[in-house]
Amino acid sequence: MVTRLSNFFLRTLREDPAGAEVASHRLLIRAGYIRPQAAGIFAWLPLGLRVKAKIETVVREEMAAAGAQEVHFPALMPRESYEATGRWEEYGDLLFRLQDRKGGDYLLAPTHEEAFTLLVKDLYSSYKDLPLTIYQIQDKYRDEARPRAGLLRGREFTMKDAYSFDSSDEGLDVSYQAQRDAYERIFQRLGLEYVIVQADAGAMGGSRSEEFLHPTPVGEDTFVRSAGGYAANVEAFTTAVPDAVPFDADAAPVIFDSPNTPTIETLVAHSNAHLDGDYTAADTLKNVVLALTHLDGRRELVIVGIPGDREVDEKRAEVAFAPAVVETATTDDFEKNPLLVKGYIGPWSPTGAVLGEESATGIRYLVDPRVGEGTSWITGANLDEKHAHSVVAGRDFFADGIVEIADVRAGDPAPDGSGPVELARGMEIGHVFQLGRKYAEALGLKVLNENGKLVTVTMGSYGIGVTRILAIIAELNNDEKGLIWPASVAPFDVQVVAAGRDQVAFDVAADLSTTLEAAGLDVLYDDRPKVSPGVKFGDAELVGVPKIVIVGRGAADGEVELWDRRTGDRDALSIAEAVERLTSR
Amino acid sequence: MVTRLSNFFLRTLREDPAGAEVASHRLLIRAGYIRPQAAGIFAWLPLGLRVKAKIETVVREEMAAAGAQEVHFPALMPRESYEATGRWEEYGDLLFRLQDRKGGDYLLAPTHEEAFTLLVKDLYSSYKDLPLTIYQIQDKYRDEARPRAGLLRGREFTMKDAYSFDSSDEGLDVSYQAQRDAYERIFQRLGLEYVIVQADAGAMGGSRSEEFLHPTPVGEDTFVRSAGGYAANVEAFTTAVPDAVPFDADAAPVIFDSPNTPTIETLVAHSNAHLDGDYTAADTLKNVVLALTHLDGRRELVIVGIPGDREVDEKRAEVAFAPAVVETATTDDFEKNPLLVKGYIGPWSPTGAVLGEESATGIRYLVDPRVGEGTSWITGANLDEKHAHSVVAGRDFFADGIVEIADVRAGDPAPDGSGPVELARGMEIGHVFQLGRKYAEALGLKVLNENGKLVTVTMGSYGIGVTRILAIIAELNNDEKGLIWPASVAPFDVQVVAAGRDQVAFDVAADLSTTLEAAGLDVLYDDRPKVSPGVKFGDAELVGVPKIVIVGRGAADGEVELWDRRTGDRDALSIAEAVERLTSR
Repeated sequence: MVTRLSNFFLRTLREDPAGAEVASHRLLIRAGYIRPQAAGIFAWLPLGLRVKAKIETVVREEMAAAGAQEVHFPALMPRESYEATGRWEEYGDLLFRLQDRKGGDYLLAPTHEEAFTLLVKDLYSSYKDLPLTIYQIQDKYRDEARPRAGLLRGREFTMKDAYSFDSSDEGLDVSYQAQRDAYERIFQRLGLEYVIVQADAGAMGGSRSEEFLHPTPVGEDTFVRSAGGYAANVEAFTTAVPDAVPFDADAAPVIFDSPNTPTIETLVAHSNAHLDGDYTAADTLKNVVLALTHLDGRRELVIVGIPGDREVDEKRAEVAFAPAVVETATTDDFEKNPLLVKGYIGPWSPTGAVLGEESATGIRYLVDPRVGEGTSWITGANLDEKHAHSVVAGRDFFADGIVEIADVRAGDPAPDGSGPVELARGMEIGHVFQLGRKYAEALGLKVLNENGKLVTVTMGSYGIGVTRILAIIAELNNDEKGLIWPASVAPFDVQVVAAGRDQVAFDVAADLSTTLEAAGLDVLYDDRPKVSPGVKFGDAELVGVPKIVIVGRGAADGEVELWDRRTGDRDALSIAEAVERLTSR
Repeated sequence: MVTRLSNFFLRTLREDPAGAEVASHRLLIRAGYIRPQAAGIFAWLPLGLRVKAKIETVVREEMAAAGAQEVHFPALMPRESYEATGRWEEYGDLLFRLQDRKGGDYLLAPTHEEAFTLLVKDLYSSYKDLPLTIYQIQDKYRDEARPRAGLLRGREFTMKDAYSFDSSDEGLDVSYQAQRDAYERIFQRLGLEYVIVQADAGAMGGSRSEEFLHPTPVGEDTFVRSAGGYAANVEAFTTAVPDAVPFDADAAPVIFDSPNTPTIETLVAHSNAHLDGDYTAADTLKNVVLALTHLDGRRELVIVGIPGDREVDEKRAEVAFAPAVVETATTDDFEKNPLLVKGYIGPWSPTGAVLGEESATGIRYLVDPRVGEGTSWITGANLDEKHAHSVVAGRDFFADGIVEIADVRAGDPAPDGSGPVELARGMEIGHVFQLGRKYAEALGLKVLNENGKLVTVTMGSYGIGVTRILAIIAELNNDEKGLIWPASVAPFDVQVVAAGRDQVAFDVAADLSTTLEAAGLDVLYDDRPKVSPGVKFGDAELVGVPKIVIVGRGAADGEVELWDRRTGDRDALSIAEAVERLTSR
């Protein structure tokens, strides 16, 4: 049945909605695809629902082709299983929590690993039942601190989440690869360029983890890639660990006066003026004091030594210390630890180690991988306005561990030896994880193996944000006039516009719409009787159906215009030619 | 693609699940359609999802045919609009309420009148935009006090809720009729017998309201119907109000001693023994003391006078006093009101009215419609062990109002004069309401009419419980072996069972499955290699696919058995005949 605009539930808006900063947010609202209900929560109008359904169909088809079976869980889930895996706490404020009338604790699930694990535990018991991959397309909730950019970071979103179950690591590799391949096909069908990057598993736990990023300068994620094929998001990038440097011949550390040098910049200038040598920030060791808040509420100070030419990357620090929350130490923290001389902190002092092994402060000292054995540094001497040079790692100080929180820069070597990396930006469009046995262990999912022994199942988790992808497609496909949908997900295949004043234009447009619909196309027919052609064209450009047929003055002579929304080309054609062109693919 | 049982996510259970009392609950779990997650909250397995999708398709097709357009709202909604209509309070404990990280109040929507009203207000402004009917198929939440019977009364359920918007009452009638007709078609297509009964609008407010009930002795709703076509649920039944009776010639009330007669039964026996006349319970006036708890927490006593042969119907009382909560008065209530002499309460006393107008107690006195002007009663005299006779309504006492809380009985006259009613039981399968202007007024939904004046929009609300219907179909279609799906909603059209030990049975079964699938049927092929035919047959009966093909010993000779799950008939046929029979409709 042809959809007629005269009674279609649509009202396009002339004005940009307040607070909508990104194009997809602005245009999806203006063109009548979604309506905001609360911060980061949207209702779907008929146009939006059509696009969403098309994306879901692509996802379902590729899941079926990959042998995944569809199930469906409620959004409202009881606390217990999330408690067992620690995520009831770990998710912090991101979780919408509530109680039922009996005081039972529930949550709106941000993801369903626990539920899927328990379902399989509930029903399956043998390795013969595996492998199994099951998925759902479902509405999820996360109480984001700053919901923004419309559907790109909302508090409710539709996600396809799949989970694989295997009795062996080799099996997991196969299941993981099947989902990874399916994701490639999905993004290819949706016309979404992607890069697969190594990712950190974050709060999900587990081992192998890759993200599908759409590369775009406006992406909110940064990733690195080398010409030799290495790609990782910044959080997952690992620094190539340098070989140990021999230090037997090195001179002992020397303390020197360094008045007014609390910053690396002032320290380097002072060193070049007063020491023998030509120093850069990379020769200095910066010691950053951080405060971690652990899940149990405990606050812990840690000090991290990184080369002075590097900055702390907040996201890398977040991941490195997760699930603890990281912040910079406060004045109060320094006051409570008088051994820490702000601006002059270092791992060594003439009276013995201040940080690291046998530390007098009791504060953990972690270092960047570049602070390897034998490296020599100019660094704070733990005395006001004094630094020391020739302070050698592994001789004068020993760290309690290695941590990756320094920023990654273009030119840094890829850890796999594939050359220097470049930085790029992207938007996350999918994520595949090898969860391993974390959830199965926490929830007791075991099966009998070939030898009749109970083995813990190994799992994978695979997510695509359906509504997020919709927004990204909108973000990538628009101009100043409105949306321009790719044919694969357009709400309609063609929009027919009756643009004349004469009845004949309407009669021809109605006939043509019926013909096209009968040929299997989804047709939106703008039959509004008293709306000017200009307004109709403007609405068509805003709504973004890829092909538009204008039935106007030439209608009486059997002539129409075929308008390509993307190229802007308008071709005058006979009706038969227009039908031929539209139905030929 | 043929679905093969060997890797289909299904595990049938031999044992009935604990606490599952009704057949649909028991069988849907045992046969692997759903799994419980919490009280009244279920996950959907592949089989269940298939049946649900088929029901949703029928609903979507009929909604489209009725001109309704699909939208979708989130389950998580902000408090404000529900506050404006009073439902944030009215819903009481039925509502799942929660707060976000900023302390904002939210709810899990039990229904979406407010959201739809605001959406239309947001986008439309003229009578020319109307009529409009929009709907969604969406997961809703109600925190039922006693979730039970599986999907029949869960705390999460999938519902199709439609809302119509019109600028005139006549328009509403048309929109209402279109949905009502669509509901009839939906139930006809699903093979669900139904009765349309007048219903009380309950917490929804509004005027015309009808329920679609499936008549069944195990239904939880009681309804009445007359041979003349009247049908109503018990809550909506109205008592025919008798004409006033002349009472000029009646004697004045007379007090008499009635020791030990606190019940109607003892009072009638005493009256027949000591008064002149032949009395039945219907001659006595029973005065029931009820305690109402209002939304604001205020507790109010009311007394209701009903004929002594009637009982209070709890559901009718609930509806009559909604949104207040009704309970029987407590001992404490009586102690606080010493004028109420328990067992001997009446509306009249020798010292003046105790109840009703100018009541000394200050308690509201309401009466059943049968206690009309001029009716004469034996009733309490407000003195211990004393009653009075010849107490005449409209002369000796005056009620503060009429209320319908007495039970309805077979033989009671239908209010429309269509004869005596009979009582029957049914299950609610759909509900259509004329909401009128309640929501539009509360939320300010107005449009300009033909004369450029703002008029408040009038609305309808139309609901079908998709998951409830699925359960009801399961409830009506099973035997001691398992489920028996009607073809219109069966998860598969045919189940092919390879029942032989020889490879030939498997080869033939696989070929046949492919042939049937290619002919457009959904095929479930039981290809499990080491499972006995008996177990396979048992599973097939439990799962309930309507047609089963057994490929066994005769396979080598090209012979199979076609088994009708409902009738139990098994016909030996050639493969070609079996294909012909299965694909001929």
